[in-house]
Amino acid sequence: MSFHKINPDDVLFFKSVCGDKQVLADEENIARCASDQTEDLNYPPEIVLQPGDTAEVSRIMKYCNERLIPVTPRGAGTGLSGGALAIHGGVALDMKRFNKILHIDKRNFQVTTEPGVITQVLQEQLQAEGLFYPPDPASKGSCFIGGNVSENSGGPRAVKYGVVKDYVLNLEIVLPNGEIIWTGANVLKNATGYNLTQLVVGSEGTLCIITKIVLRLIPAVKHDLLMLVPFRSPVEACAAVNAVFLAGFTPSALEFMERDALEWSMKYVQSSGVSLPDDIAAHLLIEVDGNHMEELYRDAEAIAAIVQQYDIGEILFADSHEQKQTLWMLRRKAGEAVKSHSIYKEEDTVVPRAELPELLQIIKKLGREYGFHSVCYGHAGDGNLHVNIVKGDMSDEDWKTKLPQGIRRLFGEVVRLGGTLSGEHGIGLVQKEYMDIAFSSVQLQLMKQIKALFDPKGILNPGKIFMS
Amino acid sequence: MSFHKINPDDVLFFKSVCGDKQVLADEENIARCASDQTEDLNYPPEIVLQPGDTAEVSRIMKYCNERLIPVTPRGAGTGLSGGALAIHGGVALDMKRFNKILHIDKRNFQVTTEPGVITQVLQEQLQAEGLFYPPDPASKGSCFIGGNVSENSGGPRAVKYGVVKDYVLNLEIVLPNGEIIWTGANVLKNATGYNLTQLVVGSEGTLCIITKIVLRLIPAVKHDLLMLVPFRSPVEACAAVNAVFLAGFTPSALEFMERDALEWSMKYVQSSGVSLPDDIAAHLLIEVDGNHMEELYRDAEAIAAIVQQYDIGEILFADSHEQKQTLWMLRRKAGEAVKSHSIYKEEDTVVPRAELPELLQIIKKLGREYGFHSVCYGHAGDGNLHVNIVKGDMSDEDWKTKLPQGIRRLFGEVVRLGGTLSGEHGIGLVQKEYMDIAFSSVQLQLMKQIKALFDPKGILNPGKIFMS
Repeated sequence: MSFHKINPDDVLFFKSVCGDKQVLADEENIARCASDQTEDLNYPPEIVLQPGDTAEVSRIMKYCNERLIPVTPRGAGTGLSGGALAIHGGVALDMKRFNKILHIDKRNFQVTTEPGVITQVLQEQLQAEGLFYPPDPASKGSCFIGGNVSENSGGPRAVKYGVVKDYVLNLEIVLPNGEIIWTGANVLKNATGYNLTQLVVGSEGTLCIITKIVLRLIPAVKHDLLMLVPFRSPVEACAAVNAVFLAGFTPSALEFMERDALEWSMKYVQSSGVSLPDDIAAHLLIEVDGNHMEELYRDAEAIAAIVQQYDIGEILFADSHEQKQTLWMLRRKAGEAVKSHSIYKEEDTVVPRAELPELLQIIKKLGREYGFHSVCYGHAGDGNLHVNIVKGDMSDEDWKTKLPQGIRRLFGEVVRLGGTLSGEHGIGLVQKEYMDIAFSSVQLQLMKQIKALFDPKGILNPGKIFMS
Repeated sequence: MSFHKINPDDVLFFKSVCGDKQVLADEENIARCASDQTEDLNYPPEIVLQPGDTAEVSRIMKYCNERLIPVTPRGAGTGLSGGALAIHGGVALDMKRFNKILHIDKRNFQVTTEPGVITQVLQEQLQAEGLFYPPDPASKGSCFIGGNVSENSGGPRAVKYGVVKDYVLNLEIVLPNGEIIWTGANVLKNATGYNLTQLVVGSEGTLCIITKIVLRLIPAVKHDLLMLVPFRSPVEACAAVNAVFLAGFTPSALEFMERDALEWSMKYVQSSGVSLPDDIAAHLLIEVDGNHMEELYRDAEAIAAIVQQYDIGEILFADSHEQKQTLWMLRRKAGEAVKSHSIYKEEDTVVPRAELPELLQIIKKLGREYGFHSVCYGHAGDGNLHVNIVKGDMSDEDWKTKLPQGIRRLFGEVVRLGGTLSGEHGIGLVQKEYMDIAFSSVQLQLMKQIKALFDPKGILNPGKIFMS
């Protein structure tokens, strides 16, 4: 693919569309848009554009499509698969000015928002109206809702409430040729034509630019209870996860953390909130929520009785809002803590929930074989385990050549267990070389044809998801 | 499109694939496959094939694709939009032999099933294992799960538990060229490539043949309570629907029935289960479910207090399993009752829930203007209202030429209210002429290109969803 390099005429055009101040090529902005939260990748775009409305996005796309200028949409840059990186240069389409919540439709339990709204800001404004938008990725305090839709993000509450795709009703999108369409309708049930909405959710900015998002909401939930359960065996912790569900409970979060994850996170945020006896190897963080406290106490006690059948330490019941905040912060900061600790790679494995104990054993076995240390944590209730492979003492050569073979083996086992490559981070740049493990050539061909249908010239976020 | 007529050589080939007894051209089978539950449509296929496994489907598709023989997949024939009708002749691909539940994976709350299993049979077998698959279309006692997936069916419980698309994890499909693929993975979260699964759900048999279905399940729910609330004003009944949700309740069903719907249904099934005072114009059927009876009683009382703020008659609380069965049967049989009563057309309108009262008023106004009587009922909690237009005294000429204009006006209003053409019945044959009301030419073009990508020769269920 031979792309056009941006020249002064192009810059003049972009300035005529967005205004001078929204066309940026200074070092700081280029550097900001050269990376996201994926490893230590660095791919500077040629220019950063900050359009202010859908019409501007449309004019930019039409122009770039005609001239073969690559366009890579960008939210808050919190992605974990390199999806927002302009690996072929061109335009970084920075959506930060799309930061308005357009309409909270309380009557219909819906919100229409622009994609550049921070997820937590959206959640809090809705909460103030008695409305609840559940998906809460670890980066909710900084990530954009548009990025969440593009990656089909999850988060701890997905186990009870589902992931982003379960809340997106309708999207306004701009196609690479500049056409503006809605993908569906603002309704809870829809059997009218193909589901373009769900085709766009999770498409990682490769099919179109999302400019408006309609989400369904549910009534705010009044209460929750949180407990931290220490296990002496990580595999037993994974096994306990399924025991909770088999007993008929659906917690609002069921998170797994290996000892290292919690320990590194405590160091990273300088918290001493949790005591960590030497014999504890993993924790489950379990939340139940609902509108009746007495029912929650009953459920929490029943769940405690289930986990007590395993070899556990003393259960910590969070007894204040602050303690809950601390426990959640420790879980949410695990990723950053690992990142600050060492060079690493994160794999976003997902398997049917009951296969988690086997997955964890496989990871450790592969680690011994390939000489890597791993720190695992994640949304165990969904079977979604984040495997952080830390470089540690591994040689640069082994890291570069041997490790990918180990990862390939790992994904092979994940697929054998009925799972797949990514639960919530997307494929983006860093997992695309493994797509052939999850999909046959027929499947991949079908997906590539869909890409070509939306983006025949291949200018939109090129080099992502597929190898070629 | 010029299709190939089936000749004796083709029949020999089909017999070599499926066996002699599974290649049917007798009057009875042709007549059976010539219609579904949509109005009084009649389109006989040239031949009926009953393949027994995926490999047979693959060979049939490859053969028909090469020879331009149209193939129309068929479940139980309970569809309400003509989706299973072979309007261009060719093969009716009768999936009735795909009737095995392949694997109930209790550990992972999943089931793998063939598409020709009756939905209620599937539900009952799962229930016996403590597992719950909620979507329950009115025809659940006879419809196939494969048809439900193809139409993205709903049913009363969708209001709390979602529609079919919310339960489909993975599908084995046969493409028109005979290739066999899975669309995804058996996991609760998936951010790995484009969502082919959701593209196939609701695609009405126009993209591929579904041969295996993996559904996620939830723990069985222990208890439910049911009440029937009579209203003196249908518009007030619709308004009360939203009041229940605004108060923070999510019933497991919230169904609306105009007086005629209930009255005709009672006559049709010869039930005297409900007394129907002269001043009652509509009913809401409200169900709550959960695992703790005391909580259900509390919720039911609170909901009763909400509806009592409207002009209602005496609420009937179903106090036995039999009474619940009777009330549900009366609701489920409303469609058949209307069908037996008169020539009719059913529109499957869906709007944002709070717009229901306005939608109902618009329907009645249009009825006065165009001279039609309508009987409305449906899943009010989802904003999904089935509008049954009965021919009654309307002249044949008006029915043929004037009524479509009225329906066009109706759908125009539905779209203006934020809604769309079909909530759960699909577009199929009978609604395709209205697709331009819901979608622009760009949207339609995109969908048609997706169709062409899966089915380049246009042999699969031709003449459905799109006008050309």
